[in-house]
Amino acid sequence: MSAIIAKTPPMGWNSWDCFGTSVTEAEVIANTDYMAAHLKPYGWEYIIVDIQWYEPDAESSHYRPFVPLEMDEYGRLLPSVKRFPSAAEGKGFKPLADYVHSQGLKFGMHIMRGIPRQAVHSDTQVLGSAVTARKIAHTNSICPWNTDMYGVNPNKPGAQEYYNSLFNLYAEWGVDFIKVDDIAQSKLYGYHKGEVELVHKAIGQCGRDIVLSLSPGPAPVEEGDHLRKHANMWRMTDDYWDDWKDLIVMFDKCHSWAPYVGLGHWPDADMLPLGHLAIRSRERNAGNRLTRFTKDEQRTMMTLWCMFRSPLMFGGHMPDNDEWTLSLLTNEEVLRILSHSYWNRQLFRDGDRVAWTAKDEGGDVYLALFNLGSEEISVSVDLDLLELTGSMELRDLWEQKYLPAVIGRVEAVVPSHGCVLYKLSQ
Amino acid sequence: MSAIIAKTPPMGWNSWDCFGTSVTEAEVIANTDYMAAHLKPYGWEYIIVDIQWYEPDAESSHYRPFVPLEMDEYGRLLPSVKRFPSAAEGKGFKPLADYVHSQGLKFGMHIMRGIPRQAVHSDTQVLGSAVTARKIAHTNSICPWNTDMYGVNPNKPGAQEYYNSLFNLYAEWGVDFIKVDDIAQSKLYGYHKGEVELVHKAIGQCGRDIVLSLSPGPAPVEEGDHLRKHANMWRMTDDYWDDWKDLIVMFDKCHSWAPYVGLGHWPDADMLPLGHLAIRSRERNAGNRLTRFTKDEQRTMMTLWCMFRSPLMFGGHMPDNDEWTLSLLTNEEVLRILSHSYWNRQLFRDGDRVAWTAKDEGGDVYLALFNLGSEEISVSVDLDLLELTGSMELRDLWEQKYLPAVIGRVEAVVPSHGCVLYKLSQ
Amino acid sequence: MSAIIAKTPPMGWNSWDCFGTSVTEAEVIANTDYMAAHLKPYGWEYIIVDIQWYEPDAESSHYRPFVPLEMDEYGRLLPSVKRFPSAAEGKGFKPLADYVHSQGLKFGMHIMRGIPRQAVHSDTQVLGSAVTARKIAHTNSICPWNTDMYGVNPNKPGAQEYYNSLFNLYAEWGVDFIKVDDIAQSKLYGYHKGEVELVHKAIGQCGRDIVLSLSPGPAPVEEGDHLRKHANMWRMTDDYWDDWKDLIVMFDKCHSWAPYVGLGHWPDADMLPLGHLAIRSRERNAGNRLTRFTKDEQRTMMTLWCMFRSPLMFGGHMPDNDEWTLSLLTNEEVLRILSHSYWNRQLFRDGDRVAWTAKDEGGDVYLALFNLGSEEISVSVDLDLLELTGSMELRDLWEQKYLPAVIGRVEAVVPSHGCVLYKLSQ
Amino acid sequence: MSAIIAKTPPMGWNSWDCFGTSVTEAEVIANTDYMAAHLKPYGWEYIIVDIQWYEPDAESSHYRPFVPLEMDEYGRLLPSVKRFPSAAEGKGFKPLADYVHSQGLKFGMHIMRGIPRQAVHSDTQVLGSAVTARKIAHTNSICPWNTDMYGVNPNKPGAQEYYNSLFNLYAEWGVDFIKVDDIAQSKLYGYHKGEVELVHKAIGQCGRDIVLSLSPGPAPVEEGDHLRKHANMWRMTDDYWDDWKDLIVMFDKCHSWAPYVGLGHWPDADMLPLGHLAIRSRERNAGNRLTRFTKDEQRTMMTLWCMFRSPLMFGGHMPDNDEWTLSLLTNEEVLRILSHSYWNRQLFRDGDRVAWTAKDEGGDVYLALFNLGSEEISVSVDLDLLELTGSMELRDLWEQKYLPAVIGRVEAVVPSHGCVLYKLSQ
Repeated sequence: MSAIIAKTPPMGWNSWDCFGTSVTEAEVIANTDYMAAHLKPYGWEYIIVDIQWYEPDAESSHYRPFVPLEMDEYGRLLPSVKRFPSAAEGKGFKPLADYVHSQGLKFGMHIMRGIPRQAVHSDTQVLGSAVTARKIAHTNSICPWNTDMYGVNPNKPGAQEYYNSLFNLYAEWGVDFIKVDDIAQSKLYGYHKGEVELVHKAIGQCGRDIVLSLSPGPAPVEEGDHLRKHANMWRMTDDYWDDWKDLIVMFDKCHSWAPYVGLGHWPDADMLPLGHLAIRSRERNAGNRLTRFTKDEQRTMMTLWCMFRSPLMFGGHMPDNDEWTLSLLTNEEVLRILSHSYWNRQLFRDGDRVAWTAKDEGGDVYLALFNLGSEEISVSVDLDLLELTGSMELRDLWEQKYLPAVIGRVEAVVPSHGCVLYKLSQ
Repeated sequence: MSAIIAKTPPMGWNSWDCFGTSVTEAEVIANTDYMAAHLKPYGWEYIIVDIQWYEPDAESSHYRPFVPLEMDEYGRLLPSVKRFPSAAEGKGFKPLADYVHSQGLKFGMHIMRGIPRQAVHSDTQVLGSAVTARKIAHTNSICPWNTDMYGVNPNKPGAQEYYNSLFNLYAEWGVDFIKVDDIAQSKLYGYHKGEVELVHKAIGQCGRDIVLSLSPGPAPVEEGDHLRKHANMWRMTDDYWDDWKDLIVMFDKCHSWAPYVGLGHWPDADMLPLGHLAIRSRERNAGNRLTRFTKDEQRTMMTLWCMFRSPLMFGGHMPDNDEWTLSLLTNEEVLRILSHSYWNRQLFRDGDRVAWTAKDEGGDVYLALFNLGSEEISVSVDLDLLELTGSMELRDLWEQKYLPAVIGRVEAVVPSHGCVLYKLSQ
Repeated sequence: MSAIIAKTPPMGWNSWDCFGTSVTEAEVIANTDYMAAHLKPYGWEYIIVDIQWYEPDAESSHYRPFVPLEMDEYGRLLPSVKRFPSAAEGKGFKPLADYVHSQGLKFGMHIMRGIPRQAVHSDTQVLGSAVTARKIAHTNSICPWNTDMYGVNPNKPGAQEYYNSLFNLYAEWGVDFIKVDDIAQSKLYGYHKGEVELVHKAIGQCGRDIVLSLSPGPAPVEEGDHLRKHANMWRMTDDYWDDWKDLIVMFDKCHSWAPYVGLGHWPDADMLPLGHLAIRSRERNAGNRLTRFTKDEQRTMMTLWCMFRSPLMFGGHMPDNDEWTLSLLTNEEVLRILSHSYWNRQLFRDGDRVAWTAKDEGGDVYLALFNLGSEEISVSVDLDLLELTGSMELRDLWEQKYLPAVIGRVEAVVPSHGCVLYKLSQ
Repeated sequence: MSAIIAKTPPMGWNSWDCFGTSVTEAEVIANTDYMAAHLKPYGWEYIIVDIQWYEPDAESSHYRPFVPLEMDEYGRLLPSVKRFPSAAEGKGFKPLADYVHSQGLKFGMHIMRGIPRQAVHSDTQVLGSAVTARKIAHTNSICPWNTDMYGVNPNKPGAQEYYNSLFNLYAEWGVDFIKVDDIAQSKLYGYHKGEVELVHKAIGQCGRDIVLSLSPGPAPVEEGDHLRKHANMWRMTDDYWDDWKDLIVMFDKCHSWAPYVGLGHWPDADMLPLGHLAIRSRERNAGNRLTRFTKDEQRTMMTLWCMFRSPLMFGGHMPDNDEWTLSLLTNEEVLRILSHSYWNRQLFRDGDRVAWTAKDEGGDVYLALFNLGSEEISVSVDLDLLELTGSMELRDLWEQKYLPAVIGRVEAVVPSHGCVLYKLSQ
């Protein structure tokens, strides 16, 4: 049996929130250097290049329909040399991955489910198979929002060989993490179970440990066991941005998905839209900005992501981080929850009051109290609900200070959209 | 205001039920000659070439994904010369249409909604517009069952010009009837309202009266007013075949659509799968055969189609018609209902008993009594429901004989899956 | 076969809109006298006493839970002598019905489905049966808004005898019309098919022609054939009041129910809340008033009711009618549609524009054009839709004047919430 | 703050499965004596008299509509002296409760939500209030399957006083447990939130600790927080019987409700239909019998109930228990899960294979493997899913023996409808 990949929720940086389809090699390197210098000791390790790296003239976050892509003779897309100069001479992402590895970090990238339409129309050979692209392309499986690919029909001879040929190439490049898109939920077709299985097998045979991340959401809860068995992380919602309406939705999603959180399989609350965002992205008609989340909302997000044990993928341009933003990413007592807690769950939801709890491997109990409403309110919890009796030490993890000990009940005044995060110890 | 097209429900022949995607010029001519010789006096007039006439190697009724099609420099598909020799030298369907016209009949053909994918990938010019194919192709509108086309985005400059360029060509050819497919209902996208409007306008500007037929069904009843305004006929169900389960469904459909039947706009119960069928079609895994409908079922179908005023499109290979089949198509008293009745409606449905009625322009009343069950039953109607009082003359239209006069009530023993069709006169 | 009852839609007056549960004998007589004097020649004939006539202290339109009711030894409710003095000495409604008959009109009344709860708890004998009330009461069939009755279980011996005992009494009294309530639709239980059949049979055996009206709505369209066979009229909506939102809903309802309109069976658009309303009713928190409908809305209502052929039941206190109100009830050309038209149907609905049409028995065509929007608009109809060609004489039925002849199209400027009503003749 | 009631899932005996509506005092005493003698040391303690104890002539499990009940002057039902002789002279259940207490056990009983209809019709006084029964009875809130009561309208003055008067009487009697019926789910009305709150407050003011159990199910999961706050246990399904189809449903229910299990609040999987059943019950047309569950199914039920931490209420006539049945109720290692485990949850469900797990307070891990299919199969679990590494001691809790230690994976052959139940220790 192979070793388990992603024993704790992956932590890293992803280019989408900042650069949309258009990140360049220099920008990737700048974020790599920042992570190595400031975040690595806290567990941050993945540097991920998002969609359209094979499209020379990509710009902003809008897709350009039916444009030509860089591709090899076997229908496999290649990094645009215009944007990634080190990929020249057919080297692909190997030089960039090597650089990331040299900084003690790991390299990841994004692919779309399927085979390029231009490969189907020119009917390229599938490497390692007697068939051609036209034979494995699904006749009506397309992505609703991007015209690059046709889906691959899992029932066709050559389908597995095609995906194997992709992942063998990525393994040669030294890729540690793959985010596969248009696969976990499609407005047209739902969950692409067959292609998830093709990808899972392709990784298994490629000879390298590669974390598998599935997008977009909402992945269907009823496929939780299939997802847990075949992927390391998968999205619970459609794209998430720095908007309170998005954050509020995640409370329900985390509650529903809590039973599927565990060693090697992590439902994904999506990227953290913090710091300097949208330098070239134009999603939801909003451009270059600092995050629109208030500080209270930022803590609420970080707290929920950690109490739920979601992967953490920073979305801003890290070299521009201010001190506050950096502080959110380097609070060891909070990040410990991500990697050392269990029985993570919503304790209750009563109107605007939400409580989450978890146990620490060392025996302590975590308790987060959220206020989803627009007025400051008091939130309290009978410790009966946690089966805790007697006097308990109470530590505020964000403020990093002890509060007076409590018996029977914890109560806090919580600001609008904010939270408190406590550790209770005997 | 333009003259009304299709004042009564169109009657004709269509190649699909018999030849699938693969009909040839010789076969079209054979059916043309038969219609001219035997059916023309009864109102039959359209000869219609169904799908894939632009694909040289089409065969059976199965689609061949991603294959090359015959096309001109403006992305307009052309008849395959291999299958339609008279189309040589760029003459298109003009010679064949001329032949049909010479027999006193009218010529029709099928197109798919949209623009060929091969035009988009080679980015052909749109005739009469500054834009190219890539600019008007919809980024995610495909047909779920055929890989030839992308939909056209009605909001793009050049979209109307593209459809105009098609219909101008068809008008030059002398086309009298167009069946547009993948437009009235798509399992992926529903009703394609925008493209229906493009087609309607393109016909209006082309200078020729062309009947517009929309497929496949089920067209949405809630779009009944839009359909009535923009098309002459539209399908009420998915493809219909010689299977009792298909026929039984049509009773409900006709009941729902009855309010939309009228001058120039005819909900369409689909082709009549009668006589010698499926010479090269392989739909539903059933090949070359005589219709599987019993004689009672055939009369039931003809009766319902006429009482509802559906278009009548014969689906079998007409030169092989036997006497019985021919008799179904040449009963003048029955066919008169199609063209001279009004207030056509279901009178009641009570378990397996269904009654339809209509008035004749001359004042008589039609009454059809159906038995949808598997045992012979008696069906009766209180003439109160028809607001008829006093003694009425009763004529059996299929048997073409008078029955004893009735007062107050009509009653008939009706065989399983069969019907009686009466005319009542004062 | 019995003679048909209600050959045309019944026309009359009902006490509910004005007096709620509390109408008195004097008030009934006042309305009787008015109808005899002013409306009888136009077809108005029914005088109907609505709910709770058996409750001595009823007041307003609110129900008083669990109060004692006047009842005979067989569990049959009797008119409160306090409110109907002529009912003294067990004469029931016979004296009042006699008076109505003496004015050349007909008498009707309301009952609730079921058997009085007080009969069940005191376990009265069922007349003509060996069983008692407790044996036929349904164990969980109650009215959601009135505590007087339990439903009767149609499967129990004695159930039919109970309903027979009711209608035999009503026949003795000389009742011509019964409105049965809590039967056509219940928020708790839907359509009470079994009890409708009991009532239908009870009427059949009672020896008197009694019109059967079912309430409240919305009666289910899918039971249209059952309703048509067992009742003369049935409600299409819940209670209707003088509120535009109620009126607008009726357009959809009439469209859906049009196939079920005909000799002896009339879907019912409910009472006409016109003139002086709610003298003691307090429905929807609105009391004593003149109708809140504008004059345009009043014409719209009368036009739709007539074009659809709904029963007409006036709801206001008739002696207080002003000239305008009386004019709505005495326009012979408009009322002729109610009794002499056929093929009544919605022609189209296009946003706020709605057209209805019908044929007159004499060959003319009726056309009503409605404007459901809040701005004056022009509404036009291609006469193709009516299959009318050539020049047509055009008469405005509300204004009672001829307009210039039309060819090909009718067009009218229609005020907000208003309508025009035309008759077209060759 | 009051002490917590029901710190662990209640365990006891209930008369319904065996005696329906008709249990007698002698039968209650026989079961009390058996429990005291054989089950008390294992945690069993409640003796519960189910529905209709106030109806003298109750028999079987069928309800007798509209029959008179024993009642005091304040509309409070009293035990039928005919069936419970010790209740004579107005002593109610006090003598019987005293007897149960004398055996070291606790006494419980069943009530229906609401106020007796006979109290409403005779308009009894509400004790401690100026109002009468008619004022607090809800006008349309009835039980769909029993005609004894009207619901109480929580918005009416006197409603709380009425419920207080009930629970004050029960507290005088010495009642320790109340099962309130027709309240957690009604086919007519859903969850009766208002009356649950009335009952909760009535218990709080009565001066005695009384466990509150709500029936029937399915209680709505979305009301989980309300239920947890106001009741100690509530049903997750409609009545459960000795039928595999019922048992299989409970797996889904337990999975959905797992987040709401905890100190003082226990979703209830319903009674255990084991041993000698249905001595006078006739539910589902099945009478006097030994449980129809196979031995494998019995273990499956006991295992699921314990792994989920459901209350355990034995349904058979205990004096007739055989050795096997008794062994199911006295396995200390299995019953320890009920009272000493946490993080109880479904680990996965993969077709017929279901695994549940929980942690013991002492650090061990419980693992139950179920086979829902009709063939013997092998079920295995990667210990990664439990985050267990290294060699683990494995104990079979039903067989009470150690199996060979395991590393990385547990695997078992499980019979059809059966299970294995393991404890894993480091």
